[in-house]
Amino acid sequence: MAAVLTPQADDFPRWYQDVLAKAELADNGPVRGTMVIRPYGYALWERMQAELDARIKAVGARNVYFPLLIPESYLQREAEHVEGFSPELAVVTHAGGKQLDEPLVIRPTSETIFGEYMAKWVQSYRDLPLLLNQWANVVRWELRPRPFLRTTEFLWQEGHTVHATEADAAAFARTILHDVYADLMTSVLAIPVVPGRKTVHERFAGAVNTMTVEGMMRDGKAVQLGTSHELGQNFARAFDITFLDAESQRQTAWTTSWGAATRMLGGLIMVHGDDAGLRLPPRVAATQAVVMVAKAGEGVVEAASALAAELRAAGVRVEVDDRVDTGFGRRAVDWELKGVPVRIELGPRDLAAGSATVVRRIGGTKTSQPLASVASSVAAAMDEDQAALFAEATKLRDDRIADVASIDESVEASAAGWARIPWAVVGTEGETLLAQSGITVRCL
Amino acid sequence: MAAVLTPQADDFPRWYQDVLAKAELADNGPVRGTMVIRPYGYALWERMQAELDARIKAVGARNVYFPLLIPESYLQREAEHVEGFSPELAVVTHAGGKQLDEPLVIRPTSETIFGEYMAKWVQSYRDLPLLLNQWANVVRWELRPRPFLRTTEFLWQEGHTVHATEADAAAFARTILHDVYADLMTSVLAIPVVPGRKTVHERFAGAVNTMTVEGMMRDGKAVQLGTSHELGQNFARAFDITFLDAESQRQTAWTTSWGAATRMLGGLIMVHGDDAGLRLPPRVAATQAVVMVAKAGEGVVEAASALAAELRAAGVRVEVDDRVDTGFGRRAVDWELKGVPVRIELGPRDLAAGSATVVRRIGGTKTSQPLASVASSVAAAMDEDQAALFAEATKLRDDRIADVASIDESVEASAAGWARIPWAVVGTEGETLLAQSGITVRCL
Ligand SMILES: [Zn+2]
Ligand SMILES: [Zn+2]
Repeated sequence: MAAVLTPQADDFPRWYQDVLAKAELADNGPVRGTMVIRPYGYALWERMQAELDARIKAVGARNVYFPLLIPESYLQREAEHVEGFSPELAVVTHAGGKQLDEPLVIRPTSETIFGEYMAKWVQSYRDLPLLLNQWANVVRWELRPRPFLRTTEFLWQEGHTVHATEADAAAFARTILHDVYADLMTSVLAIPVVPGRKTVHERFAGAVNTMTVEGMMRDGKAVQLGTSHELGQNFARAFDITFLDAESQRQTAWTTSWGAATRMLGGLIMVHGDDAGLRLPPRVAATQAVVMVAKAGEGVVEAASALAAELRAAGVRVEVDDRVDTGFGRRAVDWELKGVPVRIELGPRDLAAGSATVVRRIGGTKTSQPLASVASSVAAAMDEDQAALFAEATKLRDDRIADVASIDESVEASAAGWARIPWAVVGTEGETLLAQSGITVRCL
Repeated sequence: MAAVLTPQADDFPRWYQDVLAKAELADNGPVRGTMVIRPYGYALWERMQAELDARIKAVGARNVYFPLLIPESYLQREAEHVEGFSPELAVVTHAGGKQLDEPLVIRPTSETIFGEYMAKWVQSYRDLPLLLNQWANVVRWELRPRPFLRTTEFLWQEGHTVHATEADAAAFARTILHDVYADLMTSVLAIPVVPGRKTVHERFAGAVNTMTVEGMMRDGKAVQLGTSHELGQNFARAFDITFLDAESQRQTAWTTSWGAATRMLGGLIMVHGDDAGLRLPPRVAATQAVVMVAKAGEGVVEAASALAAELRAAGVRVEVDDRVDTGFGRRAVDWELKGVPVRIELGPRDLAAGSATVVRRIGGTKTSQPLASVASSVAAAMDEDQAALFAEATKLRDDRIADVASIDESVEASAAGWARIPWAVVGTEGETLLAQSGITVRCL
């Protein structure tokens, strides 16, 4: 059979574009840098959202919704912040049939508008910590867009919190990094992330400390999957977020912000996918198993439905594919492209033998199994495959991290993967040198 | 105790504003007509979303995400559509630091951009029906905004579907009206909606038939809670959505669209609230019961937590209120304002007697109960209260619907509620006359 996708080794970015199209994950939008997330891609996003939202709520944050449009003046209150974002902004100048008195910015992130309202809501130390989160779309004009990884509009969650002390804010920002982001990436997305700090140069505009979880894609490049920022008192001062402490003294608060976006979807694809298409960790797969009617025949569709019901009862997210008017081979390739962990093939001959063929996307095995044992073996496969993808990604990453001792060695190592180098050797000057070779210091 | 809210009978719109502020549901946004949905309000929206999303998936639609920004030219392809929306549009003219070649419109709804892509995805009758849904924010510049009911930006779901025949499209639009919207409103929101058709004059721009579910608020006015449109072949022709039928003949498709928004939250408040605040149907309440530590004392907090755990195990969404440094009366009024169906008060004296005081928000009863029976009685109260609110809203509505025979009688009846009149008596001329008295024909 001819390859459906460009092989990864030939052209990794092209392989990525091919997967997006062939697995029906996303299309380019009509405006440059925007995208349309198709049902199969969106179902993955919904699974990620549900898992991430549960973790955000577990650490005590509550969801809210702030307006899309922000008065331009808000962004100017925190000097570094406006400077960091101005070239990326989309601006509404006309609305309701006439020109607006003040232009409105489509949120590139919502620190400023949260700041304005958190200042009203926080009055006393009893109101702290204030832990808020928002699921929303944001717009940042992108010059070099790539679907999911870097798009003009993207979907994300952004958390914004207010604390009484610097220590509380710092501890919470770390909780988000480890218990929320790193836990999601490792236990659900099967991505062995490296959590760490960004250099001063790579910090978020207005932050005093930016932390990140980074994954390694199969081409050896890094992808930033979530960031957690300590904002010190910069935003609290700009927006006058103060509170009366237990001794009735007015104090300036400490804030944090943190976000993870549809970029995670791009990361997921690039960390696990292979030349046959996606490979989905079972915990994030919207469809974990598909029961394929290989060929029509007496009782086959009924048996497939019964098997699917049994799998569903065993907690497996399952679909039945009974499109027998489409060729079997074409459908099998399609499920492989879509990365569904387990395919159960059932035809008249299998049924007569009381068995089914179980094909595993991740291990690549293909075995005939008695119908009665299929449900329990598929349920067990979910855990095995989740662990197998994580182990494979971990090995790939570790094989590609080189411990180096100089800037020159770093440049060499970065051609194939990541370089681990003592920061004392690099420093801010070294960072500038590395930048000249197109290398960024990802994580301290 | 002084009333916290303006009484409904004195000034209903002001009562509504008071509830939004005092129950901490929403604040006005910085841009006129926008709003900030606060944690308590957003938790209600999340419950509605979950229930609505499950129903949408149950009828076979799949979620997608389309871009926020739409090229202005898209809206012009369907003449009635652009005419219907142009005064409401917000327009982006600058982005990425320069003026755009073509202005971009923030979606007021997404028929046009869905149309463009559905035309690509639909090739053959095998691709039909194509049933898509999107959860998104939209912007329509509002001259007379009211939080939740009519805001410049609102959150909603918009469904867009393509069908092979007019009959299929019509049947699907009715399924959405009845099995999705009317079912959600009656069984979850406890709102006895009247489903029906809009007059030609009140139709959605570009639709050939607009259907609606309408609820009656406690001031006798109607609120439109969801709409389902048959778009005929208008959008299919404008966007060239065609398919090859089983005989390989090219056919023009039939489309529908349907939406429900954060307006449902406004409706919920105005249908059930009373002079003491919100009253939430248990099925939509984010917090169904609160265990209040009335006064600190040996073992009281522990007993409250144990009771909450028991309630949680019985499937009740429960919270513990142990803020004993805030006055008991103030906290009780606050839970009443927030409309939490059941309040369980526990103090040292109750604990010594092995009992708790159970206060029901909807029936207004207050009884002392043995601790051992609290969990089961609260679980039972959930069903009773859900039914009680529905019955009360139904009675209120029916008392205020007057059967009338002439336009003059309609005007009179509409001052207090709704008038039911044969359409043959009204007609399009009658509709114009009624409009002069500020009355709209809501539903046929
Ligand atoms: Zn750490
Ligand atoms: Zn009907």
